[in-house]
Amino acid sequence: MNTITLAHGSGGQAMQQLIGQLFMRAFANPWLDEQEDQARLPLAELTARGDRLAFSTDSYVIDPLFFPGGDIGKLAVCGTANDVAVSGALPRWLSCGFILEEGLALATLERVVNSMAATAREAGIEIVTGDTKVVPRGAADKLFINTAGLGAIPATIHWSAASLTPGDLLLVSGTLGDHGATILNLREELGLEGALSSDCALLSPLIEALRPIRGVKALRDATRGGVNAVMHEFAASSGCGMALQEKALPLKPSVRGVCELLGLDALNFANEGKLVIGVAREAAQQALETMKAHPLGRDAAIVGEVTASAGVRLCGLYGVKRTLDLPHSEPLPRIC
Amino acid sequence: MNTITLAHGSGGQAMQQLIGQLFMRAFANPWLDEQEDQARLPLAELTARGDRLAFSTDSYVIDPLFFPGGDIGKLAVCGTANDVAVSGALPRWLSCGFILEEGLALATLERVVNSMAATAREAGIEIVTGDTKVVPRGAADKLFINTAGLGAIPATIHWSAASLTPGDLLLVSGTLGDHGATILNLREELGLEGALSSDCALLSPLIEALRPIRGVKALRDATRGGVNAVMHEFAASSGCGMALQEKALPLKPSVRGVCELLGLDALNFANEGKLVIGVAREAAQQALETMKAHPLGRDAAIVGEVTASAGVRLCGLYGVKRTLDLPHSEPLPRIC
Repeated sequence: MNTITLAHGSGGQAMQQLIGQLFMRAFANPWLDEQEDQARLPLAELTARGDRLAFSTDSYVIDPLFFPGGDIGKLAVCGTANDVAVSGALPRWLSCGFILEEGLALATLERVVNSMAATAREAGIEIVTGDTKVVPRGAADKLFINTAGLGAIPATIHWSAASLTPGDLLLVSGTLGDHGATILNLREELGLEGALSSDCALLSPLIEALRPIRGVKALRDATRGGVNAVMHEFAASSGCGMALQEKALPLKPSVRGVCELLGLDALNFANEGKLVIGVAREAAQQALETMKAHPLGRDAAIVGEVTASAGVRLCGLYGVKRTLDLPHSEPLPRIC
Repeated sequence: MNTITLAHGSGGQAMQQLIGQLFMRAFANPWLDEQEDQARLPLAELTARGDRLAFSTDSYVIDPLFFPGGDIGKLAVCGTANDVAVSGALPRWLSCGFILEEGLALATLERVVNSMAATAREAGIEIVTGDTKVVPRGAADKLFINTAGLGAIPATIHWSAASLTPGDLLLVSGTLGDHGATILNLREELGLEGALSSDCALLSPLIEALRPIRGVKALRDATRGGVNAVMHEFAASSGCGMALQEKALPLKPSVRGVCELLGLDALNFANEGKLVIGVAREAAQQALETMKAHPLGRDAAIVGEVTASAGVRLCGLYGVKRTLDLPHSEPLPRIC
């Protein structure tokens, strides 16, 4: 049997075999081994680490499934784990729901599952509960994944966009738009394969390095909608304005090339391994140096500041300020 | 705007409007209102109730979206909440991931979301974090939902299929196959609309009534694969056999009719509001009466027993025993 059939999602023998031979082996852990309808996890492991539970979910529908720098499986682990991690929590457990299209090559599913398992293992995350559905050919495109993630937020950490005040500085952890430009290049066949690679990465090691710094006030990972969307979220939550400096934005030459070619702004491009941080001015230098000393933050930069006057603005290379609206939509569907 | 467009999943303004005007209003709760990338939930609320976290997920791809007795939204809340509840936990928080097809009528989404909200509210469950993806026309069929659920398992409860031993009795909480027969009737256009209705229901009130009974050893809700699949799970986990009495199985006449018409066995049909319980023999009568006294368990019955000899067997109406194999697949894809 080389392809997924409807029987693999039916609750019968074929599904049991797929679960036993693929998922249980790849994700092996004691919670899955119990084979109950739910994982039963020790609450003490969470209360030893914090006082609040961080809980987040994302579905992944990216097209194509494999791309330079990652694949839908790696993305499904990193994306949700990052949404848990930006609260200050260490991501610990994930659930995983597959929606498979009848006819999907089993080898494709195996490659994705093994990538999820490897990414999770490296991060100390366990995939503890799951579900598999199969829909008839044409009712879904190949493979969708949903993950939900859990971790405990240390009692000392209270990061929140609402706490930002005028004068705070805004930092990014590296070059912008790498993921969006990579997918755009593949889908539009721009022919820049060699130069572009997704930044898909688990950010919790970098976030752990930032945790001890007093003055770190708000963290987000800039995914769909890019840094611009995070700026608008920061502005809405804090009631302040956000002013970015165009010349300070770290951009890879290849990403700049894609932007110029298509007349698009990398600030709106999706990232899958980049933090946006709001920091009290006096802690900004320490946060910047901490990030630069970490492999995930080598290209970190101070890119702007929180202002009293509302709105999101970009100060251009020649000193001209312009308002950054939140676009009605991103350039690309199925970017993540 | 009367239909879902790709912009609704793009991370831009259109998505913010959909989230603000539909999801935030319908699911209104303080965790969602914080609008962070993750819900931040008080661990103390869990530790006050139990010592283990029950965590489960399911994706819902049912076709059609609306059916007698429920819809995909009600199903997405009840199904996952039930998977949490059969551990003994009270389901407390849900995540929710939507995958929408471009062109879906906004009115359809609203109807589904309002159904989810009403079902959750009635059960004291809050939908605390979510995600929305839109895929181009033809890349998904209308609407898929994933939910992941959380609750705390009381320290006194250790239900497990592995604890079943020969002599224990097997009970079901009501008539079998109602959900499967309802969907089969719609999809195969058998014309039995008036007589059939899905049993889609949240089982936690019934489970709460069973919790104080010493001697309740294992609980499952019989969904995809039906009671037969649960029997095989009980057999595999316990190393025992399961013997069912055909004449004891509660069946609605309309469901029996569908089975006879199509030559199918209701034991393999999906249920969405039925418990299967393994109970020490001396506690079986109390468990049965407790269920019968509850609106969700009126048709409860003792249907069989755990045996020393392995395998799942059905004793027929005329005393003939036959082995029940786990079918390779269910009769229907997209049953839940």
